[in-house]
Amino acid sequence: MPELILALDVLDGDLARGIALKVAPHIQAIKVGYPLVLAEGLGVVKDLAGFGLPLIADFKVADIPNTTRLITERVFLAGFHAVICHGFVGDDSVDACVSTAREYGGEVYVVAEMSHPGAAQFFTGDTPGRLAAICISSGADGIIAPATRPEHVAALRGIVGRKRILSPGVGAQGGDARTVAGLVDGIIVGRAIYEAADPVQAARDYAATCR
Amino acid sequence: MPELILALDVLDGDLARGIALKVAPHIQAIKVGYPLVLAEGLGVVKDLAGFGLPLIADFKVADIPNTTRLITERVFLAGFHAVICHGFVGDDSVDACVSTAREYGGEVYVVAEMSHPGAAQFFTGDTPGRLAAICISSGADGIIAPATRPEHVAALRGIVGRKRILSPGVGAQGGDARTVAGLVDGIIVGRAIYEAADPVQAARDYAATCR
Repeated sequence: MPELILALDVLDGDLARGIALKVAPHIQAIKVGYPLVLAEGLGVVKDLAGFGLPLIADFKVADIPNTTRLITERVFLAGFHAVICHGFVGDDSVDACVSTAREYGGEVYVVAEMSHPGAAQFFTGDTPGRLAAICISSGADGIIAPATRPEHVAALRGIVGRKRILSPGVGAQGGDARTVAGLVDGIIVGRAIYEAADPVQAARDYAATCR
Repeated sequence: MPELILALDVLDGDLARGIALKVAPHIQAIKVGYPLVLAEGLGVVKDLAGFGLPLIADFKVADIPNTTRLITERVFLAGFHAVICHGFVGDDSVDACVSTAREYGGEVYVVAEMSHPGAAQFFTGDTPGRLAAICISSGADGIIAPATRPEHVAALRGIVGRKRILSPGVGAQGGDARTVAGLVDGIIVGRAIYEAADPVQAARDYAATCR
């Protein structure tokens, strides 16, 4: 039974807090990206932590090991519980992310594949599998793999075994929650919840799909 | 004659401002990454803009097109003059970065290759060349290519023609400024200047190398 993770991709702190307040009872985690953090500052993380849910920093960290370490420190000092990093920068950067996260008791998820059309240019062939393998070698907690390509998610499960798979691309990007629900540990939904006429009902519906 | 770009990779705003104040007369641009912005907030950009030098946001943006657009907007609203993005996520994300930057009169540089050991795992074969080609197709202003691999920089010059090449990895990471000075449009130096016993003298020395 996968968790339902809200991608809180709004730019306004009050709006973010308002959506989180309404939807919190129906979700298991909140994912926050750079747009909100850059617009509101890292202080918004402390506000969102007040809802008692794990907070995932979707920063898609893709830097050299030393900079990755510095970014990861800021993530956990700010109050996040997990961070998303890219694997295509190599295993030394992912290792730096994981070892830093562990100092704070935090989790790391490695992007194995992405959900937008352009991702098909470089996340091809054996690349997603090699990125998933870095999740294993680095001791990260899981991978990010897109709901828009469920057959790929199934293949990646064969590589990561019992590590967690979190899956974005549901709803606005065309992925079907029912199709991937049996394959993944978390379904990430953004606009299809927070832009719904009734976000609470939308969250309830996705939560029901996850069951 | 390449420009000298200071990579201001410190975490403290006062320290950053102090270094920039001393070194500004000897450099042509300042590169700022996420660690300083996350530690001090985007407000630090307005302070640094006071030195009259172009500011490059080394955010290595690596997200889906919509999120890339939102991050790029924040970059230029904050006062940056240029942003660095990854091409690995595909041309649609780079296109989104470039079109957004143009709305603010800003520049975009695409990472073609990186300078740390792990980069050799995925930035291999024809990948750097394909990433450089995305710089051309997207109408970006140039690429980032590492001083630690000057023979690769020379090959990338053949692809990007008169687009600009900015080259990190000089100094602490082992790249030699003299070797790449004739190949690139900007040399990015961080620790070898701001951790020097005399940062002003170090900046002067690198500036002389660039001449």
